[in-house]
Amino acid sequence: MSDQNPVFIPGPTNMPDRLRRAMQVQTQDHRSPAFVETLTPVLEGCKTVFGTANGTIITFPASGTGGWEAAISNTLSPGDKVLVARYGMFSHRWIDMCQRHGLDVQIIECPWGSGAPADKFQEALSADTDHTIKAVLVTHNETATGVKSDIAAVRRAMNTANHPAMMFVDCVSSLGSMDFRMDGWGVDIAVSGSQKGFMLATGMAILAVSPKAIAAMETAKLPRTFFDFRDMMGANAAGGYPYTPPLQLIYGMAESLKMLFEEGLDNVYARHHRLATGVRRAVDAWGLKLVAQSPDLYSDTVSAVFVPEGFDSNALIEHVFATYGVSFGIGMGEMNGRAFRIGHLGSLTDTMVLSGLATIEMAMADLDYPIKLGSGVVAAQEYYRATTKPALAKAA
Amino acid sequence: MSDQNPVFIPGPTNMPDRLRRAMQVQTQDHRSPAFVETLTPVLEGCKTVFGTANGTIITFPASGTGGWEAAISNTLSPGDKVLVARYGMFSHRWIDMCQRHGLDVQIIECPWGSGAPADKFQEALSADTDHTIKAVLVTHNETATGVKSDIAAVRRAMNTANHPAMMFVDCVSSLGSMDFRMDGWGVDIAVSGSQKGFMLATGMAILAVSPKAIAAMETAKLPRTFFDFRDMMGANAAGGYPYTPPLQLIYGMAESLKMLFEEGLDNVYARHHRLATGVRRAVDAWGLKLVAQSPDLYSDTVSAVFVPEGFDSNALIEHVFATYGVSFGIGMGEMNGRAFRIGHLGSLTDTMVLSGLATIEMAMADLDYPIKLGSGVVAAQEYYRATTKPALAKAA
Amino acid sequence: MSDQNPVFIPGPTNMPDRLRRAMQVQTQDHRSPAFVETLTPVLEGCKTVFGTANGTIITFPASGTGGWEAAISNTLSPGDKVLVARYGMFSHRWIDMCQRHGLDVQIIECPWGSGAPADKFQEALSADTDHTIKAVLVTHNETATGVKSDIAAVRRAMNTANHPAMMFVDCVSSLGSMDFRMDGWGVDIAVSGSQKGFMLATGMAILAVSPKAIAAMETAKLPRTFFDFRDMMGANAAGGYPYTPPLQLIYGMAESLKMLFEEGLDNVYARHHRLATGVRRAVDAWGLKLVAQSPDLYSDTVSAVFVPEGFDSNALIEHVFATYGVSFGIGMGEMNGRAFRIGHLGSLTDTMVLSGLATIEMAMADLDYPIKLGSGVVAAQEYYRATTKPALAKAA
Amino acid sequence: MSDQNPVFIPGPTNMPDRLRRAMQVQTQDHRSPAFVETLTPVLEGCKTVFGTANGTIITFPASGTGGWEAAISNTLSPGDKVLVARYGMFSHRWIDMCQRHGLDVQIIECPWGSGAPADKFQEALSADTDHTIKAVLVTHNETATGVKSDIAAVRRAMNTANHPAMMFVDCVSSLGSMDFRMDGWGVDIAVSGSQKGFMLATGMAILAVSPKAIAAMETAKLPRTFFDFRDMMGANAAGGYPYTPPLQLIYGMAESLKMLFEEGLDNVYARHHRLATGVRRAVDAWGLKLVAQSPDLYSDTVSAVFVPEGFDSNALIEHVFATYGVSFGIGMGEMNGRAFRIGHLGSLTDTMVLSGLATIEMAMADLDYPIKLGSGVVAAQEYYRATTKPALAKAA
Repeated sequence: MSDQNPVFIPGPTNMPDRLRRAMQVQTQDHRSPAFVETLTPVLEGCKTVFGTANGTIITFPASGTGGWEAAISNTLSPGDKVLVARYGMFSHRWIDMCQRHGLDVQIIECPWGSGAPADKFQEALSADTDHTIKAVLVTHNETATGVKSDIAAVRRAMNTANHPAMMFVDCVSSLGSMDFRMDGWGVDIAVSGSQKGFMLATGMAILAVSPKAIAAMETAKLPRTFFDFRDMMGANAAGGYPYTPPLQLIYGMAESLKMLFEEGLDNVYARHHRLATGVRRAVDAWGLKLVAQSPDLYSDTVSAVFVPEGFDSNALIEHVFATYGVSFGIGMGEMNGRAFRIGHLGSLTDTMVLSGLATIEMAMADLDYPIKLGSGVVAAQEYYRATTKPALAKAA
Repeated sequence: MSDQNPVFIPGPTNMPDRLRRAMQVQTQDHRSPAFVETLTPVLEGCKTVFGTANGTIITFPASGTGGWEAAISNTLSPGDKVLVARYGMFSHRWIDMCQRHGLDVQIIECPWGSGAPADKFQEALSADTDHTIKAVLVTHNETATGVKSDIAAVRRAMNTANHPAMMFVDCVSSLGSMDFRMDGWGVDIAVSGSQKGFMLATGMAILAVSPKAIAAMETAKLPRTFFDFRDMMGANAAGGYPYTPPLQLIYGMAESLKMLFEEGLDNVYARHHRLATGVRRAVDAWGLKLVAQSPDLYSDTVSAVFVPEGFDSNALIEHVFATYGVSFGIGMGEMNGRAFRIGHLGSLTDTMVLSGLATIEMAMADLDYPIKLGSGVVAAQEYYRATTKPALAKAA
Repeated sequence: MSDQNPVFIPGPTNMPDRLRRAMQVQTQDHRSPAFVETLTPVLEGCKTVFGTANGTIITFPASGTGGWEAAISNTLSPGDKVLVARYGMFSHRWIDMCQRHGLDVQIIECPWGSGAPADKFQEALSADTDHTIKAVLVTHNETATGVKSDIAAVRRAMNTANHPAMMFVDCVSSLGSMDFRMDGWGVDIAVSGSQKGFMLATGMAILAVSPKAIAAMETAKLPRTFFDFRDMMGANAAGGYPYTPPLQLIYGMAESLKMLFEEGLDNVYARHHRLATGVRRAVDAWGLKLVAQSPDLYSDTVSAVFVPEGFDSNALIEHVFATYGVSFGIGMGEMNGRAFRIGHLGSLTDTMVLSGLATIEMAMADLDYPIKLGSGVVAAQEYYRATTKPALAKAA
Repeated sequence: MSDQNPVFIPGPTNMPDRLRRAMQVQTQDHRSPAFVETLTPVLEGCKTVFGTANGTIITFPASGTGGWEAAISNTLSPGDKVLVARYGMFSHRWIDMCQRHGLDVQIIECPWGSGAPADKFQEALSADTDHTIKAVLVTHNETATGVKSDIAAVRRAMNTANHPAMMFVDCVSSLGSMDFRMDGWGVDIAVSGSQKGFMLATGMAILAVSPKAIAAMETAKLPRTFFDFRDMMGANAAGGYPYTPPLQLIYGMAESLKMLFEEGLDNVYARHHRLATGVRRAVDAWGLKLVAQSPDLYSDTVSAVFVPEGFDSNALIEHVFATYGVSFGIGMGEMNGRAFRIGHLGSLTDTMVLSGLATIEMAMADLDYPIKLGSGVVAAQEYYRATTKPALAKAA
């Protein structure tokens, strides 16, 4: 009887009915004119979400990880140097992928909970007078720590160092939920997926690629076929797909974009920020600490929360699922056992968030955490009450 | 973005995905053998839920109100006397329907918040020495007041009075959620619907009819065709339906019965009781009063809650919907403006109930109700924590 | 593996995906403002399909049979005389219903395969100088015989007789598929349902009621509550429903109306006529006869086809279902065993119709019918080819 | 109004309702125990369909093309030699992929319409005395030409040549529709997808990998991360997925396997063969020729049909879609303009196939093809009638 509880994992998100229905299309011929009429506006709409006028949208039937692989294999050659900072599980995985593809990875180690170190990037880039660094890889929203990095600052660092490297950004768990400005921040490849801010099923990697990155394709020697930008761009230009497309997700994307634009992207971001702030108020009321080191780093899509000394966050996540049938995120990598995560992205409401807070509170109490039952819920309730539209209007 | 909030109206209930999918059958020929194979086990399974071995299950493509009309029009004649107690909106509606069908309705007026008055029934029946009363009509669960009546006590009263009247019971908002014993309580017609304990869409009235009520058909003179038991029983016996059947709901019922039996009816009832008790703890913590006058009357499917003097429950329900996108039940009839209702039936979890409590708390606080924010949530959390399976096992 | 074959019963129809998805709404509060916003345009849109400006649309969670019962019980009193012609199963059922409701039914017996006898109606009405006949009941499309009657002619007969009776029309299997003009034809109550031309699941009776019929409510003495127009009109006017509404079907109706209006009602009717003509060409090529006696009576939603002497149409329908997994309509009433029926209404295409013709041909050949295999398919193919839009454009 | 026509492209196939419903699962936590309980039996069930006891099933959120890339990148190193015969579009694409991944591809050119040339493979392998050929790549069912190759013969050739190369087989458009025996034929990697014989949406590549191929992973130097067998095998063994899994497709696979096993794989293959034979009878009746050169090569999932001299198959496919709303496959590669394709795989019935034949016949007649209208339909009808279960039983 628990299949109606929301999930509080940081993606895939709770899919709204409207999108579930949109994905229920029966098979259609992907070589027919109807397919083109669906795909083209999807590609166009994605540009708005990525914040790009000049970028090219490229989709693959794959997960976000596949999107990363596409990004590097289309633009780099074996032995090329890339610069990456490791401050969480997803930046770690990107490093691993680069190494397995024979790239020379210059790693800046940072504490988990910190964000992209613009100053250290600047230092490294300034030191790279030969411009051997071909790309800087940044994770916009580090899902493992609940840290949002300042991409604009990284761009400024690159500009200050006057370095021509490309900038690749993983925005899998931020796009469509937090402000993203591909052109404004000078991003060369942004990598996302269908199952987070777009609120769809998993199965489509979505990339935005700058003209500079497209030019890099010409000389990139890493092998690729399935993930080859050229095949996809060629087929898309002709109204098709180089192989069988994920039709259901393309229809889902069309409707997801409609939903986002109807609400208005700024309103979508504001909603995420408001819901996230409520969660952070609850964490504070519990007397617990976020993994994210400072407010400027707080992610609006996921909060990673340290459990008190002597407690095991895995046991908490197992208990809350087994006893109450609700899924939260475990601590990943360095945070395993030390933190749990509350996903708060996608199609979500005050009511849904409060149900998650009430439930994890019960689970923490069951395991004798030193928290006051209800304290988190009340803190979030107060914040939500004060920030409803009527409340704000009244206050103004 | 609120289409994923649960509803807390006392039915129709939140439909679980499993049942929504079950109702998605494409058109099939209702005169084909496949139809029979689906309908027959549904009728059989319903007998278990009604608690009857000898009753006949009769379904109509209609709402519960249609079921009531079928009950009286198949068994009574114009001018027949029926005995009814008025203690809420649904007993009131039943009186109104009987009057509009030309029956002679002997009404026992009771305060809203009380239950079926077994003693007064006994008095009236004992006084009816000519046995002019043909039927006693009882609402098992009065949805307007959140009162569950003691049907067994009514039966004892009838037996004590040694009166041959039939007993008709409205169990629309109790069946499949609270214990019901048609044979055990000597019920002659029990009337329910698809959209409450069965967790399906609205559109099917479901009745269980005793042999005595079936015998009454022979002499009943109220006109009926659409609702005629004889046509339905004849067609069902031949594996069909007298007109186009509600195919999607019949498939839905098949799956709903599977769900109920997999969980076990006793567990279903226990779950409803546990969730309802949590709600009542919250009401108590708020310092509010239930409309139901005493604990033995408390309904496990809906709680009607008095708002404090000087407050308007309609304004509360409008506010919580407009501001938080969550639906609760308004006060009906005498309770209009004076009480609101929390539905807690069907496919529901601790987490879902807590989300409702947290939300209505916010709404009450917004409107300056003298309640302590979070108090209801904490009271329910404490109760739910203490009564999870692991907690009970540990305590034992 | 046969769940993807279309059905060729004369309703319920094959539901298009678009409408199946539209009906998948989760439970919503039917007392919330969102409900009104959905219901009101549905009622308005239905007026266009019925062809009425002054009529009132009334819906019930019921089948078409319930709609008939609503029509008579809201406007007539026991003993009232009604005039009906019996020329098929559905006109027969209407007679039966009237009799069971205590009406005095003046029956004009006509051969099955004929249509509403305007001349005989005129005769009977002219003879009724006291105006004891309160209503004339006509079946627009007799589903059992595939006969479409001329309602305008009946109206002219009534006018010629200068008779004030109301005219009630059963358009269950014609509305939304064939031209219907409530105001133009002076219809007082038109009765339809969700599962035919509207291409939805069964479960909603839909009526259009003239001001004259509404006035008749005031004096009508037949008992009704569930089907009471007054309760429904009152509740609808206040944006609600007198009991739990069939929410899924109301959402389905909203989308169905959109589909019909997007295609254009005239195009919908023309499509039905074209597909039906192809079926009739096939019947002719097989050397079989329609039950409908003359071309002016041919229904565009269902064809009833006589089987040759010595053959049993029931055996054919059983065989084609058991062997090929495709449902056609059996012969009903007088036509039982003598005719089978091909439904061709709702969401249908050339390709779907041809699949039905090819399949029933195989079944007839299996049972040694004297038909030439393929002859019906070819006849339909030729007609469809000649009447595609490109073919018509070329010919012009 | 054409969204209910079946498609006759050679995949993705028409999805049966049962599978569409199965794929409608709401988001669940892929790190919860429920996920494991679903994935494990899917992997196990796939082994039966592939015909392997020792193979390991590996799935990716990707299309079949991604599956191919996984096959080569996990087992081979840059410069490795592979042996491939080019006899259609899909074998051509495999060659292209190998070349783009830096492999040394020894190509045997064969006419399109022929199958895998066992004799030439044997010759090439015998000549490769140094065993520089690491893998032989074979397309089991060449979707572009409708040719099914004899994999057992290729294995015999390899054995006769006593060559240790691995054998990789593309069975994307054959698995689950035609007999496949991984262990029996000594296949080292078999590559398939969700959207063909499994009747699901596109989005999951499914591979079966022999112990020998798994051993080859150890030394393979082609870069891979997203498609790395090791990550997937490790995660699967621990009950998880190395990244976000395509949950909906995994649930769909669970139900698809149930459907296949309920029908029985041998019955599934026999059904495909029977339906395909009917199509071939139609082609013959039209006086047209298959691209497949001889009956032993005829595919049971797709027929590629030469159009007569002077006709353009692209025009035919465009016309039939534009005029009748039905999708067939265009001629690919060398066959572009010269042949069209009829897909007949997945969830299909006699009735559905006949609708496709009747429709393409109309389109050919519209374009003045020298065919007799109806001839193909009749030929198929006759074959289907003679081979229904009752007909076969009667004949026996």
